[in-house]
Amino acid sequence: MRAIVMYGAGDVRVQDVPDPKRQEPTDAVLRVLRSCICGSDLWPYGSMPATEDGRRIGHEFLGVVEDTGSDVSGLKAGDVVLAPFVWADNTCDFCAEGLQTSCRHGGQWAANGVDGGQGEAVRVPQAQGTLVKLPVAEDSALLPSLLTLSDVFCTGHHCAVTAGVSPRTTVTVIGDGAVGLSAVLAARRLGAERIVLMGRHKERTDLGREFGATDVVAERGDEGIEKVRELTGGDGTHTVLECVGLKPAIETAFGVVRAGGVVSRVGAPQYDQVPMDFGVFFRNITLTGGVAPARAYIEELLPDVLDGTIEPGRVFDRTVSLDGVPDGYRAMAAREALKVLVRP
Amino acid sequence: MRAIVMYGAGDVRVQDVPDPKRQEPTDAVLRVLRSCICGSDLWPYGSMPATEDGRRIGHEFLGVVEDTGSDVSGLKAGDVVLAPFVWADNTCDFCAEGLQTSCRHGGQWAANGVDGGQGEAVRVPQAQGTLVKLPVAEDSALLPSLLTLSDVFCTGHHCAVTAGVSPRTTVTVIGDGAVGLSAVLAARRLGAERIVLMGRHKERTDLGREFGATDVVAERGDEGIEKVRELTGGDGTHTVLECVGLKPAIETAFGVVRAGGVVSRVGAPQYDQVPMDFGVFFRNITLTGGVAPARAYIEELLPDVLDGTIEPGRVFDRTVSLDGVPDGYRAMAAREALKVLVRP
Repeated sequence: MRAIVMYGAGDVRVQDVPDPKRQEPTDAVLRVLRSCICGSDLWPYGSMPATEDGRRIGHEFLGVVEDTGSDVSGLKAGDVVLAPFVWADNTCDFCAEGLQTSCRHGGQWAANGVDGGQGEAVRVPQAQGTLVKLPVAEDSALLPSLLTLSDVFCTGHHCAVTAGVSPRTTVTVIGDGAVGLSAVLAARRLGAERIVLMGRHKERTDLGREFGATDVVAERGDEGIEKVRELTGGDGTHTVLECVGLKPAIETAFGVVRAGGVVSRVGAPQYDQVPMDFGVFFRNITLTGGVAPARAYIEELLPDVLDGTIEPGRVFDRTVSLDGVPDGYRAMAAREALKVLVRP
Repeated sequence: MRAIVMYGAGDVRVQDVPDPKRQEPTDAVLRVLRSCICGSDLWPYGSMPATEDGRRIGHEFLGVVEDTGSDVSGLKAGDVVLAPFVWADNTCDFCAEGLQTSCRHGGQWAANGVDGGQGEAVRVPQAQGTLVKLPVAEDSALLPSLLTLSDVFCTGHHCAVTAGVSPRTTVTVIGDGAVGLSAVLAARRLGAERIVLMGRHKERTDLGREFGATDVVAERGDEGIEKVRELTGGDGTHTVLECVGLKPAIETAFGVVRAGGVVSRVGAPQYDQVPMDFGVFFRNITLTGGVAPARAYIEELLPDVLDGTIEPGRVFDRTVSLDGVPDGYRAMAAREALKVLVRP
């Protein structure tokens, strides 16, 4: 089959790789209908050292079951299924607590001999725990929005949930990328009435407004902090959803959060240390968030996607074939595309 | 009157200062029955640059009302009252949320012309909101335990509450100082059944065991982390109560917390940056805590102190007069005394 292999920064190739085959009785093999490029894929795209062998990539996909192992029940060939962005048994104590990202028998896509999602097919470990059956046909117009439940919309939702967003909380979302816009949509869905979106790309913040942002702040750094404080009577917002992952973003988060408030971060941190000094301590600020256990949220969010209450798939503004993936990376890195959908 | 003035590191003096007098109709004047030395007082005792004029100090005290302003109702001369370690109106929106440490009209003791608690008397701003009437006599044997509601026990309680300690959570407490031991007692009171206390002073950890610690780990650093992990099947504990404030302690906290868990810090941080890298992010660790809004907790904790269910005052292992306060600082800094009670 064909799949994407990243060889180094800026070097993404489409090539032939071995067809996936079941290895364990808990495996399934899935033909990919849709996958996509994640903002986090851009970190290695920007900085990965050149390699001889390259590495597979991609962790957001949905597809059709082709084959299941003897220990997989409830799934059969032909089922349309969604894969969350880590695989997990969905039965261990961590999974039972809704933290499938720490599953005792789980792992990541495109690592340790497991396929990546950017390709024609995938061997799915722990298939019964990992995959969620979707009640749609292979050609459903809902596939893009359903695909966001694999990672990006669940990540925005995780950010809002861990921050404690509710109808009683004001919200600042930092970042107008696909995760930031998903966080806006998730915060609105959870009832937030005041959502300040910090971002400076007008076409993106316009979609943010359609998703529920009530204010947009284009300024950054101290100027941006000042602006959010102005909008909130000097106090900042109860919750701050940090959807970037760079140090200036987390610094801004502590600048715009109200005393007693919560910063949640879901942007994969490109820093080791968080600025939480005595001032942050004195104001009783909480820092939460992390890698989203998408699997824990899918059943809850699915009905709203199926009935069209929310359309998180609107973050996709470009669709490519596998051959178009290298240019998709380029376009996302250059901010020409917000998020690229892949039809293998 | 006589009060304590700190002139620089290691330089604590007893001296005559002006008698406190009402300045605002919301003020009261209080004669101090008991005060004490806080672990946080040891930071300036260790590092304050030498000064000409010195500064007042002390923020934990209880006493007898001597005089009240015209806007103070519900309090009268002769009432025995407790002061939490910041003063606050107890009516603003932050106070209503239980965050009196961020009161819009509040402030700190021993700053901006307000007396410190280590002295014979104190002018209390916002007296009606700040002071809590105690149903005991001036010579009650409960005074030491009641005094801990001013700061140290409420701080341990705040740590446990913000960490989410409950009968279902395992707990690690880092630090065997008075705050750490208070955190043990608070965690036990909230129903925790497994409490690991990290500390290496046997007489302190022995009191910790009496307060509810089920395990004591004397090792520090990586060795201490390893030990706590061993005790918890490799996972660490759901909650970690960081009661020290030094960088190695917060580093240890992230080492012993279970995936999906919470670190709460109440040790005044002597660092600006917290190590929360991608590993912490991937494990979905929350960092919370901060300065304890003691005022928010006093009514809830008071009955358990009055009926002897808890005896948080056992952290006091030395009592001094005002003249003995300089030696009290020395003894606490030298770890000869755990916490020093002052009878002016």
